[in-house]
Amino acid sequence: MLIKINMKIINFITVALIVAFFVSCSQNETTKNIESKITETQQTDPLPAWNEGETKAAIINYVNDVTDSKSENFIDIADRIATFDNDGNLWSEQPNYFQGDFAINRIKELAPEHPEWKTEQPYKAVLENDMKELAKQGEQGIVKLVLTSHAGNTSEEFQEIVKHWLQTAKHPTKNVLYTDLVYQPMLELIKYLQNNDFTTFVVSGGGIDFMRPWAESVYGIPKHQIIGSRIKTEFNYTDKKATIKRMPEVDFVNDKAGKPIAIHNLIGRRPIFSSGNSDGDLQMMQYTASNPLKSFMLYVHHTDSVREWAYDRDSHIGKLDKGLDQANEEGWTIIDMAKDWKVIYPFELTEK
Amino acid sequence: MLIKINMKIINFITVALIVAFFVSCSQNETTKNIESKITETQQTDPLPAWNEGETKAAIINYVNDVTDSKSENFIDIADRIATFDNDGNLWSEQPNYFQGDFAINRIKELAPEHPEWKTEQPYKAVLENDMKELAKQGEQGIVKLVLTSHAGNTSEEFQEIVKHWLQTAKHPTKNVLYTDLVYQPMLELIKYLQNNDFTTFVVSGGGIDFMRPWAESVYGIPKHQIIGSRIKTEFNYTDKKATIKRMPEVDFVNDKAGKPIAIHNLIGRRPIFSSGNSDGDLQMMQYTASNPLKSFMLYVHHTDSVREWAYDRDSHIGKLDKGLDQANEEGWTIIDMAKDWKVIYPFELTEK
Repeated sequence: MLIKINMKIINFITVALIVAFFVSCSQNETTKNIESKITETQQTDPLPAWNEGETKAAIINYVNDVTDSKSENFIDIADRIATFDNDGNLWSEQPNYFQGDFAINRIKELAPEHPEWKTEQPYKAVLENDMKELAKQGEQGIVKLVLTSHAGNTSEEFQEIVKHWLQTAKHPTKNVLYTDLVYQPMLELIKYLQNNDFTTFVVSGGGIDFMRPWAESVYGIPKHQIIGSRIKTEFNYTDKKATIKRMPEVDFVNDKAGKPIAIHNLIGRRPIFSSGNSDGDLQMMQYTASNPLKSFMLYVHHTDSVREWAYDRDSHIGKLDKGLDQANEEGWTIIDMAKDWKVIYPFELTEK
Repeated sequence: MLIKINMKIINFITVALIVAFFVSCSQNETTKNIESKITETQQTDPLPAWNEGETKAAIINYVNDVTDSKSENFIDIADRIATFDNDGNLWSEQPNYFQGDFAINRIKELAPEHPEWKTEQPYKAVLENDMKELAKQGEQGIVKLVLTSHAGNTSEEFQEIVKHWLQTAKHPTKNVLYTDLVYQPMLELIKYLQNNDFTTFVVSGGGIDFMRPWAESVYGIPKHQIIGSRIKTEFNYTDKKATIKRMPEVDFVNDKAGKPIAIHNLIGRRPIFSSGNSDGDLQMMQYTASNPLKSFMLYVHHTDSVREWAYDRDSHIGKLDKGLDQANEEGWTIIDMAKDWKVIYPFELTEK
């Protein structure tokens, strides 16, 4: 059941994208022609949504180098591990982390069962849409909201709730589904690396059970290659039925130094390719840069205030400060979103 | 470097096995003939080291059923998750867990740097080979030994130590390398499931960093699909060099209820196929049996006192008691090792 719906999402998105793109090029092509055109495009340009320039060239040169069996930098397939941060790296994260919007929505949904929340913070602030008061509640308030909104059910129930929300909720300013706000150039990059026998992982500060219901189909990355933060869970076996119960307690925060630790624990190899957009990804970048094999560190710099959002050193979300300094010092590749990306979101392909 | 040595191990084992097996059948076959014969054998019998009977038939019938697109029990490839316990399930575990032998050896290696161990338990017992005294030290003593022998270095240093030990140490009674004591029928089963598009995982109570240096090549299962117990680690970044330091503290014990929790956290799907040999695997079996998709639960019962060891309800290692009861009650498949397996270890193929 879970899978069937996921397949519907992937089918919807991919088919819509591909069809829309090619229909906009030529209204009367047959399906067969469309398919041959896709293959042709992939063969001639693996990253069609990227503008020509240093960034795109650096990525392609690196991949060509490490996959060339005659190169001194050739890397065995088993070692071609690529890790991608999610928020602000594969999809947008403004004006709030999307998982934060989910948590607030979930609190409102649960409110009728909790009359005491009308007077109890941080719930009161959420129910009154008082963002100023919510901010005053600080990190402790946020953690309380996340735990309340993410626990108290089985893992399977929770994933159904997430799927339902993603199928219906709209982004507050863009007014599209949240999963429409993934980055087309990054979808191409993931696919390009997979086509070159890289094993791709999502390594996100976001919750694993929040990501899994959609990330597998949207990014084409299997659930067991999606790594994130976790709350504690308990095994329950009653009446011959085994379930995983979600508990209101933090288990692991997959951010900063947590990222290389999770990569070590869950992947067991240093990445050769890492992509992120904030200081929360810096330790993952450092871990990748220390790989004795030739590695590639890629930072997304949010420079596009028109099509997306522009922010870096002073942002309350996705702060990129120390990471930007080290990337500049060490010559890591930095994506200038405004300059390097032809389109940001898949739906722009249909609008062109 | 890590990989090259791993490849050597896999090459040595696979080549030795295949060559020895076929050379014993026919001394003057050409390489080409050998290759065509392997393919033929796989096609006619995917489990050649298994005797014909109910157990083998049950496995093959199940795989045929869930991979047949016309069957009502057909299962999508993404959902074909198979999880295997390791100790006593993929390799032997008597008279001590092999990782326990490693820990004791490591304590002896480290002893010259720790003169205080001559009078301090549980180290004194280890250094004096006083197993009776060691047993008296109980679980706390064992944990102390494991933490001392497994921590204090980087993850990469530790894995090199494990590899070196496995290349040189011999099993106390069988007098062969520990990695020679994997079960030939289970190697075939893993391969058979992989050939049917199952994604295979090791889900062991053993340490992940103890398993990864050899299990990938010996079982043909990628490192990121090897799940085990963990000690705590710390990220260290000094002089532009990032390392994972191993700390003397337990992080996660992947046994009993820990197994379904780790499967949920790291795989994100319920298995449809689980294989284990002790009560420590029972919760994983229950979790698999509760899968709404058709599932298969497989217990190895150690019944062969001649070729391996015979033990179950009263064993100090790999105790199979409640698991055996539930398997019988629910009709799970139980391997009778003495009856169902033509050979136990790969090296027996050359001795036949």
